[in-house]
Amino acid sequence: MDSPGLDDLDEPGDDRHHRRHHTLYHRIAGGSVERLAAISDGIFAVTLTLLVLDLKVPVLDEVHRQVPMWHAGALNAESALWHALLKVGPSALAFALSFLTLGMFWVGQQTQLNHCVRSNRELTWLHLAFLLGVSFMPFSTALLAEYMTFRLALVVYWLNLLLLGLLLLAALRYAERAGLLREDRDPEMRRSAERRIVIAQSLYFAGVLLGVWNTYVGIGFIVLLQLNSAIAPKIHPLDKF
Amino acid sequence: MDSPGLDDLDEPGDDRHHRRHHTLYHRIAGGSVERLAAISDGIFAVTLTLLVLDLKVPVLDEVHRQVPMWHAGALNAESALWHALLKVGPSALAFALSFLTLGMFWVGQQTQLNHCVRSNRELTWLHLAFLLGVSFMPFSTALLAEYMTFRLALVVYWLNLLLLGLLLLAALRYAERAGLLREDRDPEMRRSAERRIVIAQSLYFAGVLLGVWNTYVGIGFIVLLQLNSAIAPKIHPLDKF
Amino acid sequence: MDSPGLDDLDEPGDDRHHRRHHTLYHRIAGGSVERLAAISDGIFAVTLTLLVLDLKVPVLDEVHRQVPMWHAGALNAESALWHALLKVGPSALAFALSFLTLGMFWVGQQTQLNHCVRSNRELTWLHLAFLLGVSFMPFSTALLAEYMTFRLALVVYWLNLLLLGLLLLAALRYAERAGLLREDRDPEMRRSAERRIVIAQSLYFAGVLLGVWNTYVGIGFIVLLQLNSAIAPKIHPLDKF
Amino acid sequence: MDSPGLDDLDEPGDDRHHRRHHTLYHRIAGGSVERLAAISDGIFAVTLTLLVLDLKVPVLDEVHRQVPMWHAGALNAESALWHALLKVGPSALAFALSFLTLGMFWVGQQTQLNHCVRSNRELTWLHLAFLLGVSFMPFSTALLAEYMTFRLALVVYWLNLLLLGLLLLAALRYAERAGLLREDRDPEMRRSAERRIVIAQSLYFAGVLLGVWNTYVGIGFIVLLQLNSAIAPKIHPLDKF
Repeated sequence: MDSPGLDDLDEPGDDRHHRRHHTLYHRIAGGSVERLAAISDGIFAVTLTLLVLDLKVPVLDEVHRQVPMWHAGALNAESALWHALLKVGPSALAFALSFLTLGMFWVGQQTQLNHCVRSNRELTWLHLAFLLGVSFMPFSTALLAEYMTFRLALVVYWLNLLLLGLLLLAALRYAERAGLLREDRDPEMRRSAERRIVIAQSLYFAGVLLGVWNTYVGIGFIVLLQLNSAIAPKIHPLDKF
Repeated sequence: MDSPGLDDLDEPGDDRHHRRHHTLYHRIAGGSVERLAAISDGIFAVTLTLLVLDLKVPVLDEVHRQVPMWHAGALNAESALWHALLKVGPSALAFALSFLTLGMFWVGQQTQLNHCVRSNRELTWLHLAFLLGVSFMPFSTALLAEYMTFRLALVVYWLNLLLLGLLLLAALRYAERAGLLREDRDPEMRRSAERRIVIAQSLYFAGVLLGVWNTYVGIGFIVLLQLNSAIAPKIHPLDKF
Repeated sequence: MDSPGLDDLDEPGDDRHHRRHHTLYHRIAGGSVERLAAISDGIFAVTLTLLVLDLKVPVLDEVHRQVPMWHAGALNAESALWHALLKVGPSALAFALSFLTLGMFWVGQQTQLNHCVRSNRELTWLHLAFLLGVSFMPFSTALLAEYMTFRLALVVYWLNLLLLGLLLLAALRYAERAGLLREDRDPEMRRSAERRIVIAQSLYFAGVLLGVWNTYVGIGFIVLLQLNSAIAPKIHPLDKF
Repeated sequence: MDSPGLDDLDEPGDDRHHRRHHTLYHRIAGGSVERLAAISDGIFAVTLTLLVLDLKVPVLDEVHRQVPMWHAGALNAESALWHALLKVGPSALAFALSFLTLGMFWVGQQTQLNHCVRSNRELTWLHLAFLLGVSFMPFSTALLAEYMTFRLALVVYWLNLLLLGLLLLAALRYAERAGLLREDRDPEMRRSAERRIVIAQSLYFAGVLLGVWNTYVGIGFIVLLQLNSAIAPKIHPLDKF
């Protein structure tokens, strides 16, 4: 890793009329895209792992309730375990959705960071706010998984997704305006990434509207859209936008 | 770290008839093998650490049940602690197995990523799905440790291993087909890695079949195989395949 | 990553009269700034994610107490969920504060590490002590969130912040004295970073003094200062110092 | 990060009479020191953070037992909180010890990895076994903190430290024998690092012997030694060995 950070000293769009030591700190602070990528990977890794762990607790609780422990493998005990596993299946839907969604946001954020030559204090804070939203996902997912028929749980979940999208959009626009993007990038790129965020957010919103009528239908709709965009991005017409 | 991602713009095997901005996003998204390696290391690190933590809770519970706390070190209290530690020993088997297995999959995945010059959206999602399987391991391990005599628990555990193997195989084949592997690699390499995955999976399957008869024997068989392949890879005849 | 560590052998300011093997180990141990940055990112990532998870537990507990589970989305159940979410809002203040603060310290530490050409054993231990302080933040935050009207909880929280500031300051001064900073850095830089730490710490102290009178006012004051410095660093007069 | 792994193909000390595809996989598997360093940093980061979190639970439990919650800051409630914090102080000793020890082992392992030009399958597994030992530390620490007067708890803790030392020693010797160390390293280096491990382990053993007589004295002795070696490595006579 080529130690970055000092190259930032000749940041072009900087306000030269500021008091010297103030600007000095601000010009350097948060200058390394690599460190930003590293803490993002760390937070995504912990969040994704804990997301799945969250699923483990209700499953094992359900199993404990139905299956007397250390009970030698009699057939009816086996089938109790089987039913316990099946019963928690539906709420696993919310976790699968969150894993897909976070994966998608991770891909989106890393693509964006790959296009930045350097970072600065403002961009760093936009991404930290984005990561705060990421680390809220296990919470809103657990809320949705437990209160799946409550519209408020769906709305909280949607607000989390909306926040993630808006912050990614804000970071992209800020990076462009502040001249932090690579020189050799295609100018079309930013609009393409923006369009993608807007479309994803519109579809989340449609899912929420469907969910006001029936939450299961709303969530199932979003899961299918995510799977479509993750697994078969070249087949479906929606991706053409 | 040389910021990658834009080199992907001239990805050769790409479909040029697509609509422009669509392809643009897809060509870049998930282009960095380094970020993929970083999030993989993060998820493996969290999973491996939590795996061992999961072992801690039942051990301490067992100890608490048998040893009155803050009891000055009288000899019978010491021996109660000793027996408590011994009693949880067997279920530690499942955790040792999972640590070995995850270590093996980590080595396998990093070897594979070392051979990729770059990634793309599809390969990224195959690896994210693999990581989803990785983060399920603490769950299936805990299920197996608690319900060790249940065939269903063993089957769930085996399905998790099977999923990991299949996804690693799929990622390898996809990377070859999409031309993402290094130019200078030995063509024999891919088949060698594939053969290894198939052999490991066959042995897991044999372990499960043994486990239908007696789960302890089945698990013990797999543990021995893993230890063999981790510790003494050049001695045993099985590794010659 | 260019494998570092051996260049450290010709560390200039080293005491040559030491016994050979002693000095040898010490000269190399902890030589890599990259590894120090990596473990810092890891600890910050885990701490930030767990910080938010800590918030999840009381919220879900509160919700469980007020909302009968699996209750189909009747309007009064929805409003019970709504009130449960609102009720835990205030204690979310402490978590938001800690996220902002840790983000700020992360930016500060990474800026500092960006200016080091290499590390040594002493600098590594100063940063490890700093990271110990970082990993205490979820504890002091939880204490503050639960006992928000207790002066002692505020003092414990403040001591944690003070420790972080002092260690960062000590690391900076040590790095300068030991000649570990880059050659081409601006000599003004260190004083600028120091001034920033001192100002932040003075403001924390003012917040604690306010908190002796009324803890809510004290915490609110610090949150506003942090938001000011994170979001709008170029507008407010306080940042001119 | 320059993608490594293929350079390993011409590993010199390799047995050429092996069956081809077998050797091929083994030559490449686990070839990257960077990935090994990355997963080590991840596991250390998670372990260190969770270590401190483990301390949080008993402290908050103790506080909850003594202080009626949401009790406005009356003076006697404040002093109850104060006493609750003081009471858990002693068991914090075990956690401080583990943090120091893990920090020391992290420095030791990173120093060792800095001297390796590449890794191979065997070295990777030695380090993975070392990391398994690392992730056991929160368990043996919690056991020691709760049963501080039990000799068995101290012995379990010591066995964990011994395991870590032995594996680090084994990894160092293996790396030297297999020709994985850098060419330009000082030949004295390996013996210096070995001597250090042996001395640390002897002192741990002395601490355990003291602990058979009185556990508090034994633990206090080790903590002082660790602090000595972390904070003031150039003052005390013990470091001269």
